[in-house]
Amino acid sequence: MPDLPGSLSRYGGAVEESLRAALVESQPPALYQMMRYHLGWQDEHGRPSSAPGKGLRPSLCLWACEAASGKQSQALPAATALELVHQFSLIHDDIQDGDTERRHRPTVWYLWGEGQAINAGDAMLTIAHQTLLGLTKAGVPAEKILQASAILNDGILRMIQGQCLDLSFEDSLEIGVDAYFDMISRKTAALFRCSLYLGTLIASDNESAWKAMGHGGEALGLGFQVVDDILGVWGMEDLTGKRATDIRRRKKSLPVVYALEKSSGHARQELLNIYSKQSLDETDVNIVLAVLDDLDTKEYCHSVAKELCQRAVAEIKAAEISTRARVEIEEIVDFLLDREY
Amino acid sequence: MPDLPGSLSRYGGAVEESLRAALVESQPPALYQMMRYHLGWQDEHGRPSSAPGKGLRPSLCLWACEAASGKQSQALPAATALELVHQFSLIHDDIQDGDTERRHRPTVWYLWGEGQAINAGDAMLTIAHQTLLGLTKAGVPAEKILQASAILNDGILRMIQGQCLDLSFEDSLEIGVDAYFDMISRKTAALFRCSLYLGTLIASDNESAWKAMGHGGEALGLGFQVVDDILGVWGMEDLTGKRATDIRRRKKSLPVVYALEKSSGHARQELLNIYSKQSLDETDVNIVLAVLDDLDTKEYCHSVAKELCQRAVAEIKAAEISTRARVEIEEIVDFLLDREY
Repeated sequence: MPDLPGSLSRYGGAVEESLRAALVESQPPALYQMMRYHLGWQDEHGRPSSAPGKGLRPSLCLWACEAASGKQSQALPAATALELVHQFSLIHDDIQDGDTERRHRPTVWYLWGEGQAINAGDAMLTIAHQTLLGLTKAGVPAEKILQASAILNDGILRMIQGQCLDLSFEDSLEIGVDAYFDMISRKTAALFRCSLYLGTLIASDNESAWKAMGHGGEALGLGFQVVDDILGVWGMEDLTGKRATDIRRRKKSLPVVYALEKSSGHARQELLNIYSKQSLDETDVNIVLAVLDDLDTKEYCHSVAKELCQRAVAEIKAAEISTRARVEIEEIVDFLLDREY
Repeated sequence: MPDLPGSLSRYGGAVEESLRAALVESQPPALYQMMRYHLGWQDEHGRPSSAPGKGLRPSLCLWACEAASGKQSQALPAATALELVHQFSLIHDDIQDGDTERRHRPTVWYLWGEGQAINAGDAMLTIAHQTLLGLTKAGVPAEKILQASAILNDGILRMIQGQCLDLSFEDSLEIGVDAYFDMISRKTAALFRCSLYLGTLIASDNESAWKAMGHGGEALGLGFQVVDDILGVWGMEDLTGKRATDIRRRKKSLPVVYALEKSSGHARQELLNIYSKQSLDETDVNIVLAVLDDLDTKEYCHSVAKELCQRAVAEIKAAEISTRARVEIEEIVDFLLDREY
């Protein structure tokens, strides 16, 4: 992902400092090494390195807090917890998908084995819950921390439900666009919803603002995932030399789900044949791309992403955010829509 | 495990009802089917069956609550959360150990695959956190719920650290008795500590009672694990026809760790040779059993278990529990020490 826009990147330093404090080395060292490696702070031998993520979710949380006139420092434990939850899910996803690389580095399971990678994910999820309780020290009232905890739990459970659906999609050719959106509303959008909801909850006592920001976060998450799906088929080529990664991987992402639903006759039969195979060759990939092209799939996906982002902006503006935030949300949405990797 | 003694089994009905409410079928059905299957309420096709566990940890939590003159119903959300945490750990352990059976039934990963079993465990852990927040409805003050959450998080993290150590022991012949006790103090005893601590915390405002019960719970958990280790080598034979299961599995349980530390000369060399192999045959198992016998390992383990249980009783009585509880804790300890499977 490219660098975040200024309205979000300004939180990166605080988030990283807080993450490092949450994952300071402890017993047994191997457990913390895996987690610190996954976050990009050290290499597989424990030597310092620098390949940290962008921290989109925690930045959105802190942005929402400030947008609702709260103090960034009060929401920092929640933002940190959100990033840890997201990273936990990636550690387990990599095992589930059998992925050997993430961001050009070997995955945790590939280096330490599946058993220990399961532990690394479980530990990171648990440290996320611990970190959230740091809201006490930040001066957030106990009742509100319990509300925050309930919101986070709900988001995590929805995310896991989405992962369960996503895995089950692999074996099915019957996935429609509705089922796809149900899946990503859980797998991706639930945590985006949490990010904006929690930031607002901590800043304000206005329940309708929490909800509006939460709805906005959900739309933003859906839009983010649709753009990711577009990039998985048509993006990346210039940057990585790879083309149509998600087609090769037989992922049931929006372009393919849309094509399976909209195609007919010979084209549909070809898609069904190809997606019944265990692995796709170059010819298969080209056939799929041609079918997508005939159905104007890229344009469809773009228009869906744009519509979702517009909905996000409307919802977020309905939360009565600051004047500065009203400008910044446009910048954030433009960034999410226009990124090229 | 045999039926719990009356002082603990009286809580079984309430715990099961609460567990069933926490895991009522939801979306996606497959996720809840795996969890309900694992808890023994349905078979792999979703048909009702009955093979529930005994619920030792939640029963200890409710017992502690009553021992400290609290109301059982107030601690029920915490007790339920503890059982869900324990069961989450078993789902993931079975993947990590590659075990295909648990309590004479196929394991979750063996039926649904590792990826979905990871999801089932992650979901159950998350539902545990959700369930704990039910303390609000039970009338527990918000500040105390945050304390309970911190204690539970700490217990879960220690449990995962223990699992990480246990897995790492597989590849090492250098594990001493001290390292073994550090491992089980995390993997097993941390959750026993939580059980008694949380029950007392909810019942009383006496911080020294929480801590004394917590210490007692930890000693009880250590004793429980040592007895488990004894049964893994010398137990089960009459009941299952299997003998020396944990030797066959090359587990670094207390008997073997003790023998590796205490043996010398030819016997030690034989142990090192055998434990360097990938799998053990009947002759290997017999040699190991003979070495254990020469070192009076069974007697050593029994005396350690007994000492731990005596320590547990002393700690728990120091918490100024009810007269009835002072009698019952002796019964509980006798049960844990004398069980034969």
